[in-house]
Amino acid sequence: MIEPYDAVEIIRSKRDRAELDDAQIDWAIDAYGRGVLTDEQMAALAMAILLNGMDRREIRRWTQAMIGSGERLDLSGLSRPTADKHSAGGVGDKISLSVVPLVAACGVAVPHLSGRGLGHTGGTLDKLESIPGWRASLTNAELMRQLEKVGAVICAAGSGLSPADKKLYALRDVTGTVEAIPLIASSIMSKKIAEGTGALVLDVKVGTGAFMKDLDSARELATTMVALGTDEGVRTVALLTDMSTPLGRTAGNALEVREALEVLAGGGPSDVVELTLALAREMLGAAGRGDVDPAERLSDGSAMDVWRAMISAQGGDPHAELPRARETRVVSADVDGFVVRLDALAVGEAAWRLGAGRTRQGEPVQAGSGVEMHAKHGDEVRAGEPLLTLHTDTPERFERAVVALEDAYDIADAPVPQPPLILQRIR
Amino acid sequence: MIEPYDAVEIIRSKRDRAELDDAQIDWAIDAYGRGVLTDEQMAALAMAILLNGMDRREIRRWTQAMIGSGERLDLSGLSRPTADKHSAGGVGDKISLSVVPLVAACGVAVPHLSGRGLGHTGGTLDKLESIPGWRASLTNAELMRQLEKVGAVICAAGSGLSPADKKLYALRDVTGTVEAIPLIASSIMSKKIAEGTGALVLDVKVGTGAFMKDLDSARELATTMVALGTDEGVRTVALLTDMSTPLGRTAGNALEVREALEVLAGGGPSDVVELTLALAREMLGAAGRGDVDPAERLSDGSAMDVWRAMISAQGGDPHAELPRARETRVVSADVDGFVVRLDALAVGEAAWRLGAGRTRQGEPVQAGSGVEMHAKHGDEVRAGEPLLTLHTDTPERFERAVVALEDAYDIADAPVPQPPLILQRIR
Repeated sequence: MIEPYDAVEIIRSKRDRAELDDAQIDWAIDAYGRGVLTDEQMAALAMAILLNGMDRREIRRWTQAMIGSGERLDLSGLSRPTADKHSAGGVGDKISLSVVPLVAACGVAVPHLSGRGLGHTGGTLDKLESIPGWRASLTNAELMRQLEKVGAVICAAGSGLSPADKKLYALRDVTGTVEAIPLIASSIMSKKIAEGTGALVLDVKVGTGAFMKDLDSARELATTMVALGTDEGVRTVALLTDMSTPLGRTAGNALEVREALEVLAGGGPSDVVELTLALAREMLGAAGRGDVDPAERLSDGSAMDVWRAMISAQGGDPHAELPRARETRVVSADVDGFVVRLDALAVGEAAWRLGAGRTRQGEPVQAGSGVEMHAKHGDEVRAGEPLLTLHTDTPERFERAVVALEDAYDIADAPVPQPPLILQRIR
Repeated sequence: MIEPYDAVEIIRSKRDRAELDDAQIDWAIDAYGRGVLTDEQMAALAMAILLNGMDRREIRRWTQAMIGSGERLDLSGLSRPTADKHSAGGVGDKISLSVVPLVAACGVAVPHLSGRGLGHTGGTLDKLESIPGWRASLTNAELMRQLEKVGAVICAAGSGLSPADKKLYALRDVTGTVEAIPLIASSIMSKKIAEGTGALVLDVKVGTGAFMKDLDSARELATTMVALGTDEGVRTVALLTDMSTPLGRTAGNALEVREALEVLAGGGPSDVVELTLALAREMLGAAGRGDVDPAERLSDGSAMDVWRAMISAQGGDPHAELPRARETRVVSADVDGFVVRLDALAVGEAAWRLGAGRTRQGEPVQAGSGVEMHAKHGDEVRAGEPLLTLHTDTPERFERAVVALEDAYDIADAPVPQPPLILQRIR
């Protein structure tokens, strides 16, 4: 086969700040899949994209080419509208667990194809796998059947969706090219568009525990992704939300499932409830069901009913006892005062070091380990009272978790107003 | 072995415009040689260096680390001082063939370790291999013996000199990261410093046929390399020379050897003689023999004597007939007038397409093929008179060479003054 383009010419173009044309982008993604454009060439191209950027047309075409590298699910045969949500991952972010059954209980089907965690943020599949019997992998036929019957699916994205992204993501991870907005946006959106959802709500996190450390970058990422979704006919909205402090009062797999169950039972921490309802309302609105009030479906138990059906349909026992870590250690306040800061990154790293997260793809995680937070922003504490409980099966990990938590807390004489959880809406 | 650094952290530092410290650079080059820092990681790092630069300390350390990846020759035992030259390669650049024996004839030993050509510029070893019997490979012992006895060696750089550069150069070639001044400078200088020469003269070419298209980049490259040599105790000087038009009247392997022999016999085109003498004077000056006049050694035949001894010592027959291409085709002037432009890149590409150069490493080249120029800048021509003769063993190549030569010539009603050959001296 005679190749119509030369990888080095394409790299040079982007290096020299030229725009790549549609045919060059199509060829680059296709040739990368075939191994004709090599890993080292893609690494150089990714770095040039990171440093020199891509415009809206280039990002759109790049995303389309990644979608085209695999299959695209067709959910148009379902009897209900569809909506999904995506979150770039934050510490203590168990919102998918509550919002997916909640939106389904409101009459909108949710095909939530997800991934596993890496580093300090947990993965939704890892959390669900703490439920005895639950399995993440479904065939496309099983997925469709469950969507029609239960209305809610959280499962592993199969290898057929955007395989170019899978290969590219692994490469970016080892070449320092993860933090490029065009590549982040096209990676997320290629998978969500290929998944076939009709509406999409993006929860773009900002702050120490998030990928995006400042509001401007988060806004740029959100705007880029909303444009990509809209261009492809997916009704897309983004919320920018605060991730300087963890969501809720737990970070860790089974710990977070327990907290999501509290929310589905009509209780739970106020921030988790607030974000669950805000995302549910956006998903319903984007799917044309803005008339339904999701708060009612939490209080009347119908969201919990969907949860149980969803877990059962994937082999899980919704009534089984969730695993607990073998050992715990309490971290206490050393002064009296008010919590004015609890750093999300530090808590996420501690949970990861305790065994809740993985360092390498494929590593097992501990279901029961993680961090429980007894006091958060605004709470008054007294010296000697517990601030955190650390959970792990392997007590030799406590020391490294405690080191990660040094400087995680600020306790002051007077309380400081808490920043809002939802910072901006972009559509 | 526990690695003291993480490749991704080093890539990120350079990506984010931080300086790499000495230990990071040492580790990166060493780990690359061991395959711990992978090709895709080095490709991303090279692109970050290309786009974000390195400062003088970083470039120096990078060069030292590459030298340290292999052996460093010790020429201090020779009875004569040593000097070498390096040219970044230009079209029709046969100067090494004349200047190496000339400087040796003046009492300074020249260890000229060289490479093969790729693309539109010919390699010195390829040119010499058109001489029947001549071989490029010498052991270190043979090199030392010939340097002591003849005073002049042109041979292949062995795999022991800067092996990290060899690996890195091949990677840069396929990842669009060749054109980075820190990487070009460290690549050239690591090999020349490892070669052990006491003095070094750099011929940095500027213009369409050169790597550096403008004077500013050429000056930056020259200044960087002079600093690197000086820092390592090698007396280093650079000349910036014009490469908008080919050197001499031939481009091609045996064609250029014939032209170099004319110069060694006291004749030859004036530009080739001018540059040969200018570089020889710089080499002699840097080696402490600025009192010797090299022009005398051209006219008295002693440079030619050294040439013959040098060729014989490496198995070549200095009296053998040089190969000629099987076919020739003449390109004629279509109007009367004066040649005001003859483009180096176009002539280089034509010679390459005729078979004088290679597309891939390891490809054979045709000894006899190339381009002969009958009229150059300032010459008056008449319509129908020959401008160029194209030589090749494979006449189907003529067409592609003629295409490369379209727009290579400008013929005007009046002559235009020729730019100087030597533009600037940097030390």
